[in-house]
Amino acid sequence: MTKKFNVSTPSGFPEFSPKEERIRQFWIKTIAETFEKYGFQPITTPLVEREENLIGKGGNPKEIYALKRILDEDGDKSHSGNTLRFDHTVPLALYVARHRNELTFPFKRYAIGPVFRGERAQKGRFRQFDQCDIDIIGMENLSIANDALMPAIIIEIFQKLLPNNDFVVRINNRKILKGFALNFGIPEDEIKAFLDILDDLHKVGEDEVKKRFIDAGFNKELCTKGMGFFKFTELSEIQSFCDNEVFQEGIKELETVIQTIEEMGVSDKNYTIDLTIARGLDYYTGTVYETNLIENIELGSICSGGRYEDLASVFTGKTMPGVGISIGLTRLLSQLIEANVVQLKNDSHLDFLFIPADEIATPRCMKLAQQLRTTGTKVDVYLEKKKLGKKFDYADKIGVRYVGVIGENELKDRVVQIKNMETGEKEDVKESEVVNFLKS
Amino acid sequence: MTKKFNVSTPSGFPEFSPKEERIRQFWIKTIAETFEKYGFQPITTPLVEREENLIGKGGNPKEIYALKRILDEDGDKSHSGNTLRFDHTVPLALYVARHRNELTFPFKRYAIGPVFRGERAQKGRFRQFDQCDIDIIGMENLSIANDALMPAIIIEIFQKLLPNNDFVVRINNRKILKGFALNFGIPEDEIKAFLDILDDLHKVGEDEVKKRFIDAGFNKELCTKGMGFFKFTELSEIQSFCDNEVFQEGIKELETVIQTIEEMGVSDKNYTIDLTIARGLDYYTGTVYETNLIENIELGSICSGGRYEDLASVFTGKTMPGVGISIGLTRLLSQLIEANVVQLKNDSHLDFLFIPADEIATPRCMKLAQQLRTTGTKVDVYLEKKKLGKKFDYADKIGVRYVGVIGENELKDRVVQIKNMETGEKEDVKESEVVNFLKS
Repeated sequence: MTKKFNVSTPSGFPEFSPKEERIRQFWIKTIAETFEKYGFQPITTPLVEREENLIGKGGNPKEIYALKRILDEDGDKSHSGNTLRFDHTVPLALYVARHRNELTFPFKRYAIGPVFRGERAQKGRFRQFDQCDIDIIGMENLSIANDALMPAIIIEIFQKLLPNNDFVVRINNRKILKGFALNFGIPEDEIKAFLDILDDLHKVGEDEVKKRFIDAGFNKELCTKGMGFFKFTELSEIQSFCDNEVFQEGIKELETVIQTIEEMGVSDKNYTIDLTIARGLDYYTGTVYETNLIENIELGSICSGGRYEDLASVFTGKTMPGVGISIGLTRLLSQLIEANVVQLKNDSHLDFLFIPADEIATPRCMKLAQQLRTTGTKVDVYLEKKKLGKKFDYADKIGVRYVGVIGENELKDRVVQIKNMETGEKEDVKESEVVNFLKS
Repeated sequence: MTKKFNVSTPSGFPEFSPKEERIRQFWIKTIAETFEKYGFQPITTPLVEREENLIGKGGNPKEIYALKRILDEDGDKSHSGNTLRFDHTVPLALYVARHRNELTFPFKRYAIGPVFRGERAQKGRFRQFDQCDIDIIGMENLSIANDALMPAIIIEIFQKLLPNNDFVVRINNRKILKGFALNFGIPEDEIKAFLDILDDLHKVGEDEVKKRFIDAGFNKELCTKGMGFFKFTELSEIQSFCDNEVFQEGIKELETVIQTIEEMGVSDKNYTIDLTIARGLDYYTGTVYETNLIENIELGSICSGGRYEDLASVFTGKTMPGVGISIGLTRLLSQLIEANVVQLKNDSHLDFLFIPADEIATPRCMKLAQQLRTTGTKVDVYLEKKKLGKKFDYADKIGVRYVGVIGENELKDRVVQIKNMETGEKEDVKESEVVNFLKS
């Protein structure tokens, strides 16, 4: 009978058992609390948006899931065109379009929750995954100083979540790269191709990038005079490298961002200028960020983002620039657990377990458990009819440290026999003293 | 240009703006913390399960959403048969089937998150809604004392969430109703019809129920001798009403449940026996619960559940009885807000806002803000280039209570001019004293 059903999870859709779920919840809580300290407010948009809106903002129809009822015989049209969101950015654009008259700009929101992409199933790729995003949206303008908040936030979050791992936020400005490309005679419509090649520099190395530049037909000077450029990490060293306006604008913006981060008192151990950071996504137009774990470069960027000029004009007719970052939580945590950077904890879910040795002691156990709960303690009573040994087996399996046994004698004497499951020590504790015993 | 897009949310898919989202998060946190105190562990199953499994456990194919990529030209079969979960119970059954060899029974889990139902769109009905479930699953057996935990948990949760509202958990046992029905000659295969009619007693009144009983062809004695039965709330009054085995078993179970709740010290103001509670769902076989707000009976049950004999034998081949409850969070909160039982709060999302009067003061503001954040304070700096009046307009709109202004003079004197936005009072506070000022 059981053979008829394949009970495994569908490919790409993750499941979190208690140990993973606890870490996931701790990460979400830490990330959300940090976002809030920097003035971001939570919004939760629907998991479902209209198909035309997702496609209208550049969604890939091969990756977007549409909803269709298995049996749709009542012909209720209101179900059609419903699609699962593939990120938090398009829903933000729609949210701002819906509420622009009530919102106060700059509008700072965070969004944490699942998004869906119908990608080909493969190891480490999820079709449902949690993303944690913040964005600051301006009405027509948004001061460049906002861009300095992002590295500070990334650094605070990962100092809390990965206190034993060195990481670095790499910061660049796409205007610098654009100005650089123009300087080497790359036409506007080939800058995207240039950035895409450059984006792989850390991954494939300098020689391969040079080869790809030549294959793309770019100016050979790029591979001689040009390549040295990307090694610099001080603005003073590159300030006069190109004199076109967009390059100089990028330099000035990056300078402001770096100076502001310094002024905030953020340790410079955790951020650097990296002129190779390009970010694949088209819509970034200024500051860009990536974050790497020093000892786990192979994981790629663990938190990325950037500045964009136009969040939602397609929906609102208004130009709203923004800056934001995103943490791909599900994928990141799964990678970190696999790389043993994050360890699952074996802590029991209980602080205390009562075991009634005889059924007659169950009411007393239930009463004392209820009293302990009022102090915030996580308590359970083993209620099944089993032999005492089996009851202790249960306590062993769930890994609870303290077990309180009550049998006829304890009932009469109004005591609990508390056993430390690690040391095996036993002690009779007065019923009224159990709370204090657990505190100490 | 904006006219081309309909940016409203799709019908039945809810959106939570910051004020609603804060309440939603507070409820989820309170509910989860209470569940944990009673020994429940969190699991999060995928939002997507296999179609054959959802249908196999009795899902309604008219209400289940299947996923289909908008463009499916690569013919990747791994996307087909993926469907959105419609509750937490079938996913729990699948989870237990997948993990039964690792789990320790009784297995107590909680699940909080969205489920999807492709219902006809109408006011107050959601197609995506959060449910908060707990279940205790036994392997082959599960002691009846577990059923006493549920009312205690419901009561603790709503005492915390709705401290000013009276509510009552109504408890019954379907074996009592079944025994009652058998006693009045209702055949086994009509008991479901009997329970469905009875379930509406509070809603439609006694006369209408009598009429329906007669229309259904039930024994007329049911309407004379029988109807008095449902008014009793003490077991001693009904113990000898019927003498068949199933009735007596129900009485005994309900007695144990009520006694155990009493022994736990739960105030009897918040629970009662109610012999009319039947619960529509087929799979309940023993104890059943509903919860009502005394002053808002029209909202229906705000938390329901019960005991069932068979969670997952269709997937596992094993009999696993369970008992559980569910809170339909999205619908409930939306009703409570509409009924003004729950009020949205106007609290600002910030504790403090720095306003640089001149651009030259921005770095100092950024630095002090960063220092304040280390104490857990929610702080922001207004960074846009606007006139001072506009900056205060922003502070007004976001409702922040304290604003710290720094201009050239403050910069020089190393002070912050703190303005209480409610009283209009202003005070110069030393930079180093801002933390203490906010504490007091």
